[in-house]
Amino acid sequence: MSTRLAIGIDIGGTKVAGGVVDADGKVSHRARRDTPSRSKSPSVVEGTIVEVVTELMQLAGPESVAAVGIGAAGFVAADRATVVFAPHLSWRHEPLRDALQKRVPVPIFVDNDANAAAWAEWKFGAARGETHVMMITLGTGIGGGILIDGQVQRGRFGIAGEFGHMQVVPGGHRCECGNRGCWEQYASGNALVREAHSLFSANSPIASDLLDAVEGVVDNLTGPLITQAARDGDPTARELLAEIGHWLGIGIANLAAAFDPGMFVIGGGVSAAGDLLLASARETFKRHLAGRGYRPEARIVAARLGNDAGLIGAADLARHSAG
Amino acid sequence: MSTRLAIGIDIGGTKVAGGVVDADGKVSHRARRDTPSRSKSPSVVEGTIVEVVTELMQLAGPESVAAVGIGAAGFVAADRATVVFAPHLSWRHEPLRDALQKRVPVPIFVDNDANAAAWAEWKFGAARGETHVMMITLGTGIGGGILIDGQVQRGRFGIAGEFGHMQVVPGGHRCECGNRGCWEQYASGNALVREAHSLFSANSPIASDLLDAVEGVVDNLTGPLITQAARDGDPTARELLAEIGHWLGIGIANLAAAFDPGMFVIGGGVSAAGDLLLASARETFKRHLAGRGYRPEARIVAARLGNDAGLIGAADLARHSAG
Repeated sequence: MSTRLAIGIDIGGTKVAGGVVDADGKVSHRARRDTPSRSKSPSVVEGTIVEVVTELMQLAGPESVAAVGIGAAGFVAADRATVVFAPHLSWRHEPLRDALQKRVPVPIFVDNDANAAAWAEWKFGAARGETHVMMITLGTGIGGGILIDGQVQRGRFGIAGEFGHMQVVPGGHRCECGNRGCWEQYASGNALVREAHSLFSANSPIASDLLDAVEGVVDNLTGPLITQAARDGDPTARELLAEIGHWLGIGIANLAAAFDPGMFVIGGGVSAAGDLLLASARETFKRHLAGRGYRPEARIVAARLGNDAGLIGAADLARHSAG
Repeated sequence: MSTRLAIGIDIGGTKVAGGVVDADGKVSHRARRDTPSRSKSPSVVEGTIVEVVTELMQLAGPESVAAVGIGAAGFVAADRATVVFAPHLSWRHEPLRDALQKRVPVPIFVDNDANAAAWAEWKFGAARGETHVMMITLGTGIGGGILIDGQVQRGRFGIAGEFGHMQVVPGGHRCECGNRGCWEQYASGNALVREAHSLFSANSPIASDLLDAVEGVVDNLTGPLITQAARDGDPTARELLAEIGHWLGIGIANLAAAFDPGMFVIGGGVSAAGDLLLASARETFKRHLAGRGYRPEARIVAARLGNDAGLIGAADLARHSAG
């Protein structure tokens, strides 16, 4: 019997993705569900998580799973049990670990999804060997994680790394967190789609190819579709990604001023656009970094583990914590 | 013979302040000079520093000084020897420690001035017992320091804590660092005076009492004069400080989102305004913090060591490093 396996669950605004992960960070089995709508009660989401965990335990063999790690797109308290606030989910002071632990027979640890991704990229991915890492995940919103000397920096109350809710535009777009001008309203998957919608609303001819791609159904436009159009050479899609990249670079320059990491790792669904996004981010970063030309500069690199980083990191952190 | 004393030097945009500091953080002797103009070569500033150190060594008795710590308003490399960039001084890749070490007979350590202040407030002042501290010094610009579990967080290249150069207004006021919209252009002593000048330029009657206070000589208006007028009840001076406090609160909410400290300590000359500044900062912070109402919130407190924090911290860090 091996107890070297752990289950990792990544809960985002749109999907609950799980996997069985070994000590080398390899994913052997997978399961996923759509995230229940925000109008549903927290217990509905918890039921979905338990379904995914149960399915994975059966796939792996229940005896071989040592721990379950949950990476949640929310503010997780320092107890690694409670989600105190989740802009994209219905959780408010939700005792997630206790609710799940009643229904799962191995130890559970809850972490912020981007903290989990940061850990995974440091241990198995793009940030191996780096001492000061900032992870930025671009999905529905922006998640963030900070690693110093291989330690996840959770802050005083567990909530460090909520980079997406730093204000970059005074009086700017409304954010799901309730504020205005949050970074994630300018550099995320949601921002990408909103900007495309703005072009459609303005009836701009430069958006006609994108509109054709969704056969005129505006609501069918998604981030991945825009990325695919950009890869295929659509200039408007490229401009939209470059604009997101520009705002990404602004926020990265701000974080570099404050924390001076050696590397920024860019993950999450939007990062699949690769250099269509990152070239613009790097250019803006270099133009906006204070002291540029005089100081060493952090590298901006794509995540290596892609969308798996959250679940791999959640699993590995749980195994690590279960000791 | 006691070797428990250290000399601390705080180099800002306007003054070089030094003191002899004992192991309890008490300052026994002092010396100060104006900072030579930015048009002067780095060696002129270095000459001024050596003058202050020499004067203090004679006051303390040369045998009793174990180390000299320099807190500089600039980007100090991880070697704690080189100032790589200083927005308010003429240093660019300046080997400050080596230049000074030739002329001073005890070990010298260079640190960022706000890192030094953070250390002093944690060890002797407002942040005693706190695990996650962010120091914000409001002077000519904004300096910053981060302490976790009693360790100064210097980042990968030594330059962490340059909060003042985070962009808060896209396309905003020009900063001495070369960028636009930096936080320190909205929440610093310079910002306070600039806003008052704008009122004078607009010939606003609400500024007439302030103008009378400097007998009509606009250039004589300083931050301390505005603070004094606010204390005396001048509504315009109060409004100016509240505006600076508002921007202070915006930046603090951003830093709290990213780093989640337990305490922000506000120091530097402008912090002498006390609650005339901090009440406004706290109010904005509470309105702008993501997850407010659901999460524990950092406290925002005034520095206890006032303008001495930089020199006390520089001295104590140097004693600590000299072992």
